Amino acid sequence: MTPPPVTLALSGAAGQIGYALLFRVASGEMFGPDTPVRVRMLEHPDALAAGAGVALELQDVASPLLVDVDVTADPRVAFDGADVAVLVGARPRTAGMERADLLSANAGIFGPQGAALNDVAGAGIQVLVVGNPANTNAMIAAAHAPDVPRERFTALTRLDHNRAVAQVALRAGVSPRDVTRVAVWGNHSPSQYPDLRHARVAGRAALDVVDRDWAEGAFIDSVAQRGRAIIAARGASSVASTATAVIQHSHLRRHGVPDGDWTSAGLVSDGSYGVPEGLVCSFPVTSVAGAWRVVPGLELDAFSRARIDASVAELVAERDAARALGHLDPVARSGARPA
Amino acid sequence: MTPPPVTLALSGAAGQIGYALLFRVASGEMFGPDTPVRVRMLEHPDALAAGAGVALELQDVASPLLVDVDVTADPRVAFDGADVAVLVGARPRTAGMERADLLSANAGIFGPQGAALNDVAGAGIQVLVVGNPANTNAMIAAAHAPDVPRERFTALTRLDHNRAVAQVALRAGVSPRDVTRVAVWGNHSPSQYPDLRHARVAGRAALDVVDRDWAEGAFIDSVAQRGRAIIAARGASSVASTATAVIQHSHLRRHGVPDGDWTSAGLVSDGSYGVPEGLVCSFPVTSVAGAWRVVPGLELDAFSRARIDASVAELVAERDAARALGHLDPVARSGARPA
Repeated sequence: MTPPPVTLALSGAAGQIGYALLFRVASGEMFGPDTPVRVRMLEHPDALAAGAGVALELQDVASPLLVDVDVTADPRVAFDGADVAVLVGARPRTAGMERADLLSANAGIFGPQGAALNDVAGAGIQVLVVGNPANTNAMIAAAHAPDVPRERFTALTRLDHNRAVAQVALRAGVSPRDVTRVAVWGNHSPSQYPDLRHARVAGRAALDVVDRDWAEGAFIDSVAQRGRAIIAARGASSVASTATAVIQHSHLRRHGVPDGDWTSAGLVSDGSYGVPEGLVCSFPVTSVAGAWRVVPGLELDAFSRARIDASVAELVAERDAARALGHLDPVARSGARPA
Repeated sequence: MTPPPVTLALSGAAGQIGYALLFRVASGEMFGPDTPVRVRMLEHPDALAAGAGVALELQDVASPLLVDVDVTADPRVAFDGADVAVLVGARPRTAGMERADLLSANAGIFGPQGAALNDVAGAGIQVLVVGNPANTNAMIAAAHAPDVPRERFTALTRLDHNRAVAQVALRAGVSPRDVTRVAVWGNHSPSQYPDLRHARVAGRAALDVVDRDWAEGAFIDSVAQRGRAIIAARGASSVASTATAVIQHSHLRRHGVPDGDWTSAGLVSDGSYGVPEGLVCSFPVTSVAGAWRVVPGLELDAFSRARIDASVAELVAERDAARALGHLDPVARSGARPA
């Protein structure tokens, strides 16, 4: 029996990450080999023609899974009835741009998108923000969607998680499948804290396999600076690895994380681990019945506490700047969806 | 039980098609979710640094399937023990370039690659040429590999096949899964003949569903000119749809084409359907035990015969030009592999 179709709304859909993602959606990698998908490509008006070109090329894989592909510049059209929204399109930081300018430019994107999600998205809408600053963009979107449960808003840190797993596997000379319980805490930025305190390598404590100096120094830097290293090596940013992480994030949420392991995702904090409520912060997570859960009860030693606090301080500063600019002003419930 | 690893050699691996393909290989889409893969990226010396950047980013998906990823400019290193070679890197035609120049530039790539495949590839090597002119490049590679069975050399026409299926599905208002037995004959060029004479649409003869004028006119043009249409619409060539077709070609060869359907592939002609022996020509094909078979016994009416003959005439002209330039001179068996 064919499962019901999933409606995927993708912003920045004509960009490189969108292009890397959509053909894998068409092949069933994101929602399963039998699940039909309705694709709603959301783009800036200037990029609608490019989006239409991508939609045209998508026809050429003759995928039986693609029910339809629409391209629009209107979030209220793109998000109408959407089950999953992947928000890639964002205003990147350019030379000479102040943080306040960056925040405002992105608030101008993610605020209206949050409002549109609030009013027209499907009842089970799940939102994944990829466009940077991803955590704060997700917070702003959530702030404009008072009727959508907080836990539906996430920021992508699965890429950081994968990078951390990969570096440990390389260091230990094992397969990535033997590296479990890595955690990425904090902001998807160079302040993030990839944490091996609870990680396992082929069943042993990671810190008994890789040395502690590395785990507390070069490892953290290599993961936090990896985006820059890829740009330097490739002459282009991390596109396909981001698309892979989006697919995995979505898949792990729906099908669960393998027993004994966890992944990382930016969630709206409920105060867990002392992270101020309402910040979108990366935590180690599992998924139960399609909903993310922060892994509970992990002991944080002084080193971990200090690293997490430093990244959270950055998130607090971003939040305060967004608040000062009015981007987090209370929004009335629209009543468009049930409480 | 884990299957034995597949060694994939990919030329032009740092290019856009390589980039679109490799991350899908890493996710198991090409060789299956449990099959480990050794990736050998073959690149021009000028692109080795870019290739190394792609290899670095491939680490970041933490795929348990990627056993190792090497980057080299030496075909004898890249093809050593290879099970599958996907040859994407080619010299594109540039403004003012004569056909002889184009043929010679590509013979300088595909001749030595054929010789290297002959001497060092794995016993079961399967070669798929994607770089244009794909058919003649495949013929030149095969000519330099006298010890490798002819039927192991193929040129990609699955993309044309998919485009044809998609256009029929759009025209008939059905899912692509309901369109079967499309055939693409001839050269992977605007002379190709996408053929609906034997095609089925939801169990009915395609020509009873779509009108014959369209099937003999606009349909053929739209498929044959699709690459150009995508470039016009997208401002870039067909990258991700090509990568999808490569994955499907490989998958269909190994696992077979669904019963009652076929696909299209450029094979070294054994004289079937009057196509001169030795030309690499697209035929409707199935796959039996991992080997391509031309679909036998199809009746060709005068229209089909004329269209096939026209495309074959182009292949003959390419062959004769390559021969005149010495690119098809007999190569002695190296004795490097059993007869």
